[in-house]
Amino acid sequence: MAIIRRIILDVLKPHQPKASEFAMTLADLGNEYQVHLAVIEVDENTESVQLEIKAPNINFELVQAAIIDMGASLHSIDEVDAISQSKFSQQD
Amino acid sequence: MAIIRRIILDVLKPHQPKASEFAMTLADLGNEYQVHLAVIEVDENTESVQLEIKAPNINFELVQAAIIDMGASLHSIDEVDAISQSKFSQQD
Amino acid sequence: MAIIRRIILDVLKPHQPKASEFAMTLADLGNEYQVHLAVIEVDENTESVQLEIKAPNINFELVQAAIIDMGASLHSIDEVDAISQSKFSQQD
Amino acid sequence: MAIIRRIILDVLKPHQPKASEFAMTLADLGNEYQVHLAVIEVDENTESVQLEIKAPNINFELVQAAIIDMGASLHSIDEVDAISQSKFSQQD
Amino acid sequence: MAIIRRIILDVLKPHQPKASEFAMTLADLGNEYQVHLAVIEVDENTESVQLEIKAPNINFELVQAAIIDMGASLHSIDEVDAISQSKFSQQD
Amino acid sequence: MAIIRRIILDVLKPHQPKASEFAMTLADLGNEYQVHLAVIEVDENTESVQLEIKAPNINFELVQAAIIDMGASLHSIDEVDAISQSKFSQQD
Amino acid sequence: MAIIRRIILDVLKPHQPKASEFAMTLADLGNEYQVHLAVIEVDENTESVQLEIKAPNINFELVQAAIIDMGASLHSIDEVDAISQSKFSQQD
Repeated sequence: MAIIRRIILDVLKPHQPKASEFAMTLADLGNEYQVHLAVIEVDENTESVQLEIKAPNINFELVQAAIIDMGASLHSIDEVDAISQSKFSQQD
Repeated sequence: MAIIRRIILDVLKPHQPKASEFAMTLADLGNEYQVHLAVIEVDENTESVQLEIKAPNINFELVQAAIIDMGASLHSIDEVDAISQSKFSQQD
Repeated sequence: MAIIRRIILDVLKPHQPKASEFAMTLADLGNEYQVHLAVIEVDENTESVQLEIKAPNINFELVQAAIIDMGASLHSIDEVDAISQSKFSQQD
Repeated sequence: MAIIRRIILDVLKPHQPKASEFAMTLADLGNEYQVHLAVIEVDENTESVQLEIKAPNINFELVQAAIIDMGASLHSIDEVDAISQSKFSQQD
Repeated sequence: MAIIRRIILDVLKPHQPKASEFAMTLADLGNEYQVHLAVIEVDENTESVQLEIKAPNINFELVQAAIIDMGASLHSIDEVDAISQSKFSQQD
Repeated sequence: MAIIRRIILDVLKPHQPKASEFAMTLADLGNEYQVHLAVIEVDENTESVQLEIKAPNINFELVQAAIIDMGASLHSIDEVDAISQSKFSQQD
Repeated sequence: MAIIRRIILDVLKPHQPKASEFAMTLADLGNEYQVHLAVIEVDENTESVQLEIKAPNINFELVQAAIIDMGASLHSIDEVDAISQSKFSQQD
């Protein structure tokens, strides 16, 4: 089964939790998760953010659930980097 | 016989399977396949995506079949990197 | 608990303290804090600055308090880089 | 006699053979040929492609013949990298 | 106490001393000072220059005094890079 | 006596010899000559090309003569990189 | 006394000496002088050129004199990189 190494998501989040806490919550989802959050636009009630998540093996369902759990919504998957679970991934 | 090392495809896919699953399915097609999927445009029923696939030896027919199998269509081949099967490829 | 490695803030500061002192005060907040301050716009009474702070483990609340303490206000969090507190962070 | 190390050609090709096969045929022309093919424009019957070919020693006549052989035509030579056959080339 | 590693200043200087001497005078202010001076605009009596100063530990007051001493004026501080005086700075 | 390491020339050439031969002829002029030829514009009878020549020690007169010899004309010297014949050049 | 490591000059030169000779003459001015000359504009009688000179220790007066000596004029100093004569410069 192939694994996801990097994913870019377009997410609409409420002002709370703050961007710092939002990123930390996602980073806590798994081993060596790196989360880069960029605030694209701020409206009265919401913030449109772009999330880049990198990890040896991203659990997309877990990420999606955590986003919803924090009151946000996944607007779109913009980019995905997947690799085959073969020799390649054992090297890391 | 020369081998394809990298290929960029313009593909029109339905919303399901999601971009993450679409990329993982292609990455599973072979040894050390790396798939980068970028969503270019989203319409009501379809998503126009750009696929970059890298591997030591890409089986183009297999990729094309898998794309069709997932209900998508290959709009165009945008870029191809091929190398001769000579000394060059044994080095890797 | 995940940690913040890099953060970009949009801050509105009074002319005093000068940009040099403002940056040094934030750099003094913790171990190996690196502060990059760019003055974006200067008005009669205020300066809009962009702050990039990098450190092994940024204490966001401490940063926010120091900013307010110097008479400035945090306009927005523009970017956050967070990583999980797992094996990854012990390596550094 | 100097040798050509890299050449960029502007070529007009029919839809068949596909870009993947077109690139593989050229890559098979010689030892360590690397062919990068980018599709610039697609019309009803033809595709305008840009070919970058890299190799220790490119046989330009052979490349030109193969292009014609596949029903395509060489529109122009855009770039050429040549080096003297001296000490320089023995190093590789 | 944090230290300044890099600073970008917007300075208005008279034609004399020349840009070369102006830069050398500032470079002489301390150990391993590197001064990059770019002339942005030249008017009848003055030159608007951008100064980038890099050093292990920049003494901003000394720089400001030297600028005034040469008949120029500090128009604005554009960028400041400061780091905490901790372990980080002993490494250099 | 200083030596020229790199030169960029703007040249107007007839269609024959082809760009590939033109570049090879110049590359043959000396030890380790590297010639990069880019076709800028093609008219009915002529091609405007930009030549970048790199070598440990370029003989400019020889290059100019070879260009004229092939029926082309040197429109302008666009860039020159020269270094002093001192310790620097013995290192190579 | 600080030293100049790099300088960018805007110079107006007559057509003779050619750009190649002009650059070589300046490169001969000292140890390890590297001269990059780019022709910006060509008029009936003159050429506007940008000179970048790099060396361990540039003698600006000598450069200025050589420019005048070749019938050209120094239009402006555009950039200067100077460093303090301290430990930094002994390292090279």
